[in-house]
Amino acid sequence: MSDDRYYHVDSDLVPAGEATVSVDDRGFRYGDAAFETLRAYGGSIFAWDDHLERLERTCEALSLEHGLSAADLRSRIDETLAANDLADAYVRLSITRGVQPGKLTPHPDVDPTVVIYAKPLPRGGLESEPVWDGPATVQTAETRRVPDEAIPAAAKTHNYLNGVLARAELEGGADEALMCDLEGHVSEGATSNLWFVRDGELFTPTTDGPVLPGITREIVLEIARNDGLSVHEGQYELPDVLEADEAFLTNRTWELRPIATLDGHEIGGGPITVRLSRSYDECVEESCYQSDRP
Amino acid sequence: MSDDRYYHVDSDLVPAGEATVSVDDRGFRYGDAAFETLRAYGGSIFAWDDHLERLERTCEALSLEHGLSAADLRSRIDETLAANDLADAYVRLSITRGVQPGKLTPHPDVDPTVVIYAKPLPRGGLESEPVWDGPATVQTAETRRVPDEAIPAAAKTHNYLNGVLARAELEGGADEALMCDLEGHVSEGATSNLWFVRDGELFTPTTDGPVLPGITREIVLEIARNDGLSVHEGQYELPDVLEADEAFLTNRTWELRPIATLDGHEIGGGPITVRLSRSYDECVEESCYQSDRP
Repeated sequence: MSDDRYYHVDSDLVPAGEATVSVDDRGFRYGDAAFETLRAYGGSIFAWDDHLERLERTCEALSLEHGLSAADLRSRIDETLAANDLADAYVRLSITRGVQPGKLTPHPDVDPTVVIYAKPLPRGGLESEPVWDGPATVQTAETRRVPDEAIPAAAKTHNYLNGVLARAELEGGADEALMCDLEGHVSEGATSNLWFVRDGELFTPTTDGPVLPGITREIVLEIARNDGLSVHEGQYELPDVLEADEAFLTNRTWELRPIATLDGHEIGGGPITVRLSRSYDECVEESCYQSDRP
Repeated sequence: MSDDRYYHVDSDLVPAGEATVSVDDRGFRYGDAAFETLRAYGGSIFAWDDHLERLERTCEALSLEHGLSAADLRSRIDETLAANDLADAYVRLSITRGVQPGKLTPHPDVDPTVVIYAKPLPRGGLESEPVWDGPATVQTAETRRVPDEAIPAAAKTHNYLNGVLARAELEGGADEALMCDLEGHVSEGATSNLWFVRDGELFTPTTDGPVLPGITREIVLEIARNDGLSVHEGQYELPDVLEADEAFLTNRTWELRPIATLDGHEIGGGPITVRLSRSYDECVEESCYQSDRP
């Protein structure tokens, strides 16, 4: 831990070494917390309104009425960036249900704990290098994605053991675990959405299944459609991906990251992955999507 | 929070108000932690060896090699009880994967965070009153139990949102949520195992399904078999429970707690629930099971 960084915890900026939560906080006890992973490009939060909207969806799924305004949350993020002198950064915002009396049953009256963590991450865009070291080496996990009936995949929460277990299976230097749903359809990576290209058309698992509606995923869908690509959201199986011409992963940090191999089979990026990556970079560069609200 | 209590956090006894973990701790970030709920009766931890064994099973499921000896864990619990001047207590022991470099992928090299929380809970046994206020009012939840393929139910972890969501559905004063598995078989309560009696025989959902192997459950199974009862562990549906002559829940805190109503249908305890409760009380009283290791 670098102790010269500042975290924003429960309304205060504190040095990293003092950034703590009570062991009675429901975020610690039960993982009873919502979070968002954001990017700051040039001091602005990219796609802030989309993050806010998803955060609200998560909180609705958890019946977590935190009572904090968008402006309040945003000013805490801005304070955190300023305190750490960061313009290009990875930001994580968590809202827990706080400490409540009793045990498991959540109370409607919430005094939330808000935690913001930021660290330097080079600016994306046309002139930048990707933040990843190289294309992804992906391995299919035995661990199946938690179904929506148990915990809605649209909720981005601190209950992340499903992904931890999938990642714990990785061997031989693989760096992302691909999970299938209980019926065997490919779902998503532990921290990424999956895409593949066949015969010039783009495919990604539908969020009707247990798939996080990634914000990078939404932007890529929009870019691809605007670009005139034929785009399919559906249910696919492993062979569909293995036989693809190109495949890549998306998330907030990686943006678009080609898949070098899946279970040892070479796939790689290709012309469409390159084209979409470039359009995404332009989008970041021009803030064409909706980069910010002051 | 009563600040005059002491918690045991990361090798130190600290006042409750100072009992915190880093926001970077994986227990907070991902719910990446194992826990046990224990009872101290007269200063002794009831069924300690069983708790140790389950804790190890949980840690194996999480690939969490904490490196702590049983004696070390036990002495931390004993120190916590002593610091709080407690003989009859509810105790919760958590072991997290601690702070690790990187993000989601767990590293094998673990510097665990150990948190112990204790609060007064009246002694069980023959002369005691139950800790619950009255028989349970149970409501079936729409939320389905997370399947073993996603997160093994045998692992008792800080990923407890499944139970939180089930409890959040409760209405009209119900105090426990009953979850079914994805196929519609009754599984367990948010924090309890389910039992029912029909025609003098005892039934409980099998741990082949997504059911936590409760330690109270194991003891009740042993007591019932020793008592000559016909005991069945199987797959059951809601009507099986609704048509039962008796029904009850078990967990470490409640011990045996009759179900007054399930979805508004009266069930209640009865002679076998009473007999098993009495045998359980005797077991606590005589430490006949395996109450303690010094």
